[in-house]
Amino acid sequence: MFEEKLKEFEPIFYPKSIAVVGASTNEMKTGSRWVKALISAGFPGPIYPIGSSEGVISGLKIFPNLRGAPGEVDYVIVSIPRQSVLELLDDCAAKKVKAVHFFTAGFSETGKPEGQELEEQMVKKARQGGIRIIGPNCLGIYCSERKIPCGPLPKVGASGSVGFISQSGGIAEKLTEIGIARHINYSKGVSFGNGIDLDASDFLQYLAADPKTIVIGAYLEGARRGHHLFDTVREVAEIKPLVIWKGGRTEVGAQAAMSHTGSLASSAAVWSAMLKQAGAIEVHSLEELTDTLLIFQQLGCWKGNNVAIIGGLANGGGGISVSASDACMESGLKLPPLSTKTREKLSDLLGEVGSILRNPIDVSQARRHGSDNLFKAIESVVEDSFIDLVLIQEDMDILLPHFSREGVERINDFLVDLRRRQNKPVVVVLPPGSAEPERLDMEQRLLRASMPVFTTMERAAKAIVTINKYFDCHPER
Amino acid sequence: MFEEKLKEFEPIFYPKSIAVVGASTNEMKTGSRWVKALISAGFPGPIYPIGSSEGVISGLKIFPNLRGAPGEVDYVIVSIPRQSVLELLDDCAAKKVKAVHFFTAGFSETGKPEGQELEEQMVKKARQGGIRIIGPNCLGIYCSERKIPCGPLPKVGASGSVGFISQSGGIAEKLTEIGIARHINYSKGVSFGNGIDLDASDFLQYLAADPKTIVIGAYLEGARRGHHLFDTVREVAEIKPLVIWKGGRTEVGAQAAMSHTGSLASSAAVWSAMLKQAGAIEVHSLEELTDTLLIFQQLGCWKGNNVAIIGGLANGGGGISVSASDACMESGLKLPPLSTKTREKLSDLLGEVGSILRNPIDVSQARRHGSDNLFKAIESVVEDSFIDLVLIQEDMDILLPHFSREGVERINDFLVDLRRRQNKPVVVVLPPGSAEPERLDMEQRLLRASMPVFTTMERAAKAIVTINKYFDCHPER
Repeated sequence: MFEEKLKEFEPIFYPKSIAVVGASTNEMKTGSRWVKALISAGFPGPIYPIGSSEGVISGLKIFPNLRGAPGEVDYVIVSIPRQSVLELLDDCAAKKVKAVHFFTAGFSETGKPEGQELEEQMVKKARQGGIRIIGPNCLGIYCSERKIPCGPLPKVGASGSVGFISQSGGIAEKLTEIGIARHINYSKGVSFGNGIDLDASDFLQYLAADPKTIVIGAYLEGARRGHHLFDTVREVAEIKPLVIWKGGRTEVGAQAAMSHTGSLASSAAVWSAMLKQAGAIEVHSLEELTDTLLIFQQLGCWKGNNVAIIGGLANGGGGISVSASDACMESGLKLPPLSTKTREKLSDLLGEVGSILRNPIDVSQARRHGSDNLFKAIESVVEDSFIDLVLIQEDMDILLPHFSREGVERINDFLVDLRRRQNKPVVVVLPPGSAEPERLDMEQRLLRASMPVFTTMERAAKAIVTINKYFDCHPER
Repeated sequence: MFEEKLKEFEPIFYPKSIAVVGASTNEMKTGSRWVKALISAGFPGPIYPIGSSEGVISGLKIFPNLRGAPGEVDYVIVSIPRQSVLELLDDCAAKKVKAVHFFTAGFSETGKPEGQELEEQMVKKARQGGIRIIGPNCLGIYCSERKIPCGPLPKVGASGSVGFISQSGGIAEKLTEIGIARHINYSKGVSFGNGIDLDASDFLQYLAADPKTIVIGAYLEGARRGHHLFDTVREVAEIKPLVIWKGGRTEVGAQAAMSHTGSLASSAAVWSAMLKQAGAIEVHSLEELTDTLLIFQQLGCWKGNNVAIIGGLANGGGGISVSASDACMESGLKLPPLSTKTREKLSDLLGEVGSILRNPIDVSQARRHGSDNLFKAIESVVEDSFIDLVLIQEDMDILLPHFSREGVERINDFLVDLRRRQNKPVVVVLPPGSAEPERLDMEQRLLRASMPVFTTMERAAKAIVTINKYFDCHPER
């Protein structure tokens, strides 16, 4: 389904060439920054800066108008005053441009009739010229494979399997940054702002068809074509996991959405009911959205409700066991008893006093017998046939004084190696504290090894429940 | 009320001298580490290492038994096998020790009758000898003023106004670490484990009477004297804000609590009803507990429901405004319109296109007019008489590319200065992303200036609602 979108959107996500309208020799101007960002990111095709000031930016000649660009132009990024956008669309039509992305703002989101009218004229001109519009009032395309950065910043993360759409440029930018930080690797993304031509439905259909995308995240504020969006969400959710964060759920939030992207928001209850019926996964914050995308990316097609919790790698496993159990149980996970075989192994490895041979498992006694015993204890829990997934709570504040930096590295190496040898998912909870540089370092290593890492047991448990529910309802996938 | 506790507990929280039983020349032994931790932390009184091996640890002579310590001993830290604890209590009585803290574990939490019996004998001996017991199976006292570290780690944070009690040693340790990281400064804390003599009620009464403590946090797993604890919670909550996190709310969590501190947990619903009726503030996670303690510490006696949100200090304020509004409104805060006067000022400072002169306020347009305009815009919102508290969302990922490191420092300086000049609370949301070192640096500076900092708008809003509700119900404070 939606295979036709792949061909249609090829010049949008994989343009052969890009023109940036609104560039100048002043490097602080947004258009200039976009040119520099495309160069830094390594966009492989020709880049044509267009602007009224003669000269050169980052070694590229600035052309006075789009028609004068020496080669074909697939995709145009526009950062000029709104007064000039209609004229620019004429130039785009003459140049046979495929798609125009307007960063320019000041349209329907101002609430003034002129803004609305201007948008209508833009769409009319685009239709006549065979051009598709992205925006206005947005950051446009992000495609790390084609080295197109998210906005006028040179940051491009690794290519991956997570697609996103965002009505908001700020949220798109933040998704990209969190992606880089947490190794959520995007296939492609788009911020489409007011969405006067191409909108959420179009991009969702494209990502549904895109073979490189296995899970889709969306931040939406409202829809001009509500019924069409609903139908699309239903169709897309039938193909791939679709995670939607609806902004503007409250009265004030909805007012802000109106003046942000000109979105008329419906009530939160209507949206929730709609998303549920359509089979999409609803989330309520940036953290929940990124947590969910991370777990889908790292675990792939996986389900299971029976988890084991391991705490106290060095010490202090008791309170962690209690609170982690609460967090998992309250989220709806199950903590079954370990098999007799596993308990016998653990009893040999840990002894009994003070350690808890139940699930959750406090392995702090292992330290007395050396880290090999600790590793064997963890591995025996991972191997337990009653257990679908193992949650390990590590705490740098507690690990570091007991193991030294090298000892912690060894635990890390062991976990990374375990992940390679075992098919069973291991999810790590690494709470913040007073050893942040060491914690961040450890987090990076585990994430690079495709292990999901969360800062709290609550967030980890919620993400696990979400992916489990999803694949429970879609056993065929 | 409870003033008698101050005198009684003086030798516990402010001991003149400490003996550590279980020290040796082997520096890796827990007792030895405790001796070193007390020295590193700077405990100002005599420290007497007691152990069977002759020799010296960190320059201190090891005495073969407690009776041989050359001076008076107020407080004893015990890390020896449980087989020797009764004999040790005889030594303590002979030495006229005031309080003994048992790190030693392996008692009622094992679930075995021997453990239970041993505890009963310990209490009997302590009563006869006029000694109070802390523990067993815990980390004992934390008092930064008296330079007593939390457990055998040399970390001692700054002295402050937050008291805590924790049934779990691991949670006590983590509370201390988070305190250091987030500038939650404790007056004193205690981990009391199995609580066979002094228990939650005793320490709550002490903290209620302690003039240095203005807010109390508690992590509890269960109570041996349930009715007494309930009465105490009610009495203490009448004196000071009392924030309680109950661990073992779920079936598996309760089982873990049983084998952790030997606690018989009641159902979560019973606890919630009890805490509510007693006027305590119930929280459900370590994050919520520390967030709540932080806001009480930073805002002091404060209430107000009308908040303003400022976003987009550099850019990307639109999506933030929408999602921040949702987070605040869903938590129960109000976002009233700004006064006409403030809106006129903002219109002069920001212009209209693209910026949102409502509440939430997207100030990203200020950047075009220089950072002075940004600062004036923020200050005019803080001065608005309709607004009780201002929430500022800063994002290092977005700030850094626009302002450079120096520009961000200037924003920081402005906020710290604003806090000094204005009485109105300013709460900062600093979400994590891909510029963690810079973010942590900024967070530290703001926290040092007594500005509460949170990683998400949801957490900030929840904490604000909690303190507001509290002082709304206690207008007399």
